[in-house]
Parts: sequence; C-alpha cells; structure tokens
Amino acid sequence: MRIDILTLFPNMFSGVLGESILKKAQEKEKVSFQVINFRDYADNKHQNVDDYPYGGGAGMVLKPQPIFDAVEDLTKNSTAKPRVILLCPQGSKYTQKKAEELAKEEHLIFICGHYEGYDERIREHLVTEEISIGDFVLTGGELGAMVIVDSVVRLLPGVLGNEDSPILDSHSSGLLEHPHYTRPANFRGLEVPEVLLSGNHQLIEQWREKESFRRTYLRRPDLLEKYKLTEQQQKWLKEFETNE
Amino acid sequence: MRIDILTLFPNMFSGVLGESILKKAQEKEKVSFQVINFRDYADNKHQNVDDYPYGGGAGMVLKPQPIFDAVEDLTKNSTAKPRVILLCPQGSKYTQKKAEELAKEEHLIFICGHYEGYDERIREHLVTEEISIGDFVLTGGELGAMVIVDSVVRLLPGVLGNEDSPILDSHSSGLLEHPHYTRPANFRGLEVPEVLLSGNHQLIEQWREKESFRRTYLRRPDLLEKYKLTEQQQKWLKEFETNE
Repeated sequence: MRIDILTLFPNMFSGVLGESILKKAQEKEKVSFQVINFRDYADNKHQNVDDYPYGGGAGMVLKPQPIFDAVEDLTKNSTAKPRVILLCPQGSKYTQKKAEELAKEEHLIFICGHYEGYDERIREHLVTEEISIGDFVLTGGELGAMVIVDSVVRLLPGVLGNEDSPILDSHSSGLLEHPHYTRPANFRGLEVPEVLLSGNHQLIEQWREKESFRRTYLRRPDLLEKYKLTEQQQKWLKEFETNE
Repeated sequence: MRIDILTLFPNMFSGVLGESILKKAQEKEKVSFQVINFRDYADNKHQNVDDYPYGGGAGMVLKPQPIFDAVEDLTKNSTAKPRVILLCPQGSKYTQKKAEELAKEEHLIFICGHYEGYDERIREHLVTEEISIGDFVLTGGELGAMVIVDSVVRLLPGVLGNEDSPILDSHSSGLLEHPHYTRPANFRGLEVPEVLLSGNHQLIEQWREKESFRRTYLRRPDLLEKYKLTEQQQKWLKEFETNE
C-alpha cells in the first residue's frame, strides 16, 4: 500500500511513522509513506497556502491551487484511483469498518489542514471522502491522519506478527474484552480471581465470556443494541439487571 | 498544566509535542510535558513490563508493578490530585466536553499500553478513568494520548493566539461549519457563490447560517436531535425536507 500525506507540518509525523508497527510495516515493504509539505506546491512567490475568507470573518482558508496541484502530481503516474481523504470535523465518523474498507485500497492520500478552513472547491471536486475521528476539536488533521494510518496498516496482511498480536481486538468481536491478569497473583494485597488460577479451562472460558458481556453491559450498552444475544447471555442480562 | 505520559515508545511523541501549538504552549510555559518509559521502573533484572495472562490465551498483559511505581513516583510531591487516564478501547468515548473538563486540571497522567492488555488491578486501583477516542483498533494508546493532549492544551488560556484561532470550532457551536471560500473567485472554472462577493454582510451572514444548518442536516442529523431549533431553522428544515 502507498500512503501520501499532505501537511504543513511534516515533522509531526517522524515519531509515529518511525516506531513500532508502522516502522516494521515499512521494513517489510507492506507500506510506503510519503509526507509532503504542500507549501512546496504553492505557485505564488511568497509560497502562501492560505488567504482570507470571502465574505469576511476571522481565520484563514486553504487555497485550492497548492492542494489540487499536489494531489495531481502524486497521482499522475497512478493506474489505481487513489482515495483522497480530507481530515475534518465535519466528515463521517471513523470506525473499524472504515479501517477495514481502506485496508483494501492500493493508494491513500490524506490532506491535513491545520486550523485553517478548506476552500469548498477542494471538498467538492478533489476529495473522495471526508473523515472525522471524533466529536472533539484538534489543532489540525495530522493526528487524525496518524490514527487512520495506524489502524489501517495494522490490518494489512503480514504486518502483525504473532509476537505483536493484540490480546484481543475489542471492537472486532462486538463485545468489550474481559479483564486480564498476570503475575504476581497477589500484588500489594490485590488478588487475581481464583478461577483464573484453577487450571480448569472450561470454567475460565465461561468466566471470560461472562465478564466480557458484563463489561459491555456496564460500559457500552449501546454495543448490545444490535447484538444478537445467545440464550446464556440473555440469562446473564437478567442476572445483571436484578443485581442493580 | 503538567502532563506526564507513560509509554514504551517515547520516541513516538517527539514529532507531535515538538511542533505547532503544542510546541508554542511549552515555550509560553502554559504546559510542561514529560514522556516516561515505564520500562525504567521495572524491578526485575530483565526489565520485563509484561507477562503471560493467567488462565492462558494469546497476547501479553502489562504487569502492575512498573506502572504503579511510575505513577507513584510522578505524584510523590504532588499537592493536587492528578487525573490518571488509561487509554483503552473499552474506555468512555472521548468528546469535546471531556476535553473542556480535563483542561481545568493541573496535572494529567496518561498510561499508554501497546497491544498488550492491562492487568485489571491497574484499572481498578490506580486509574481515575479510562478513555477511548473511538470505535477503532489502534496499535497502542499513544495516538489516543496525543489526541487528548492536543485537544486539551489548545483550550488552555493564552495558548491559541489570534493568528492561530480556528476558523470555527465545529463541535463547539453544536452545528457544523458553513463552507469557506478564498481567492481566486474562479479556480479552473469553479466559482465562489455570488453572495460572498456581494459585500452585503447581512445576506452573507444569513447564507452562512443556512449553509451551516444544511450541512448539519445532511451530514450529522444526530447533532440536531438535542438542538433547539429557531423559527428560521424550522422553516429551513421544511424546505430541505421538501427538496429531498
């Protein structure tokens, strides 16, 4: 997979792209990253990339020219049509489902604004989709791009080795993870549940399923709304409701 | 504000903390960051920070000792009680409201796991709260911590200068932003709406309010559910519904 990131703050990416899974994925040649300062594409002599908004008001707006030219330059030799993703608070909410969808692409281009607005013509005529990672305000699109890149690249075949397999992907199973414990069995008087020390795998499995379900019920009941309950889970649900 | 981040990948943070608003906020002494590798606190000779899960299964679990000791070391001279935040997919969903709440604190500590699970005793006895930035799976908590740090620090008084004031904070007003345009008025045949060139501020304001409302209606109708509509907005709503 090829990933290009357009930003005015390319240095922001060095730490994240150069460590851990994203570093390994590049070394294994599963992905290649290019971080491009789109100021380099500005065709005015001061290399301005933003300008005042038409109609007045505070703040600045990113001009269409540098971003159009950068995207066209990056795609001029492309056979596959890239997804051009704009990070912005108005975009559709990012989810694991979208990560799985993006992981099938050959080429992703991210456009990161940084407190400026985007000229509407960028949104309407250049971008494939607008994504927001959540209902909170960030200084720029860079962190959103990093979040998407991380969640997508870890899904690419061959990227995660066994040694770094996640203990469980909470949002893949539809329920939250059960609690985990490791040694020591007694840490400052805080003890591990006995069942986990029992060696009885059937009981352990049952405990884990119940605790996973309990945690989802307590913390994220919204996840259960579309979830098809087993008979056992229906019993647990009654038990939890009675105990409250 | 003081922010301490516990991670096994401290280098991931260099780019993000050293650029843009977060850099400026440190220079203005509005915030100080400390990124700590909690492996330095492991009291075993191999500096192990994780171990196999009790009860079996794939993946590793972060041991309580290094993290308990690190947090206690960081807070031993504290007068104010710090918020100890665990980044994990099971936490409560991060929102702008939470950012505003955290911006009032004096001391935040973030604990970032990295594909390992957390020993449950960390969650139950050390952590003030667990936060998830969204329903997607990341390689570790580091990006979540960066997202929260960025969204909180930009709210601290004196951090955002006029020159970097956001064009509008989409999620603060309750509605999405209206479209923005800047020069040129005609870019490759794509034109700016006439009203914005009219110089009539009342008409411009009205256009912006309507487009902001239209965009919210089209893209994020969920935001309107709890929103109290003005008479004008009720009229617009009828108009949009008729045109569909």
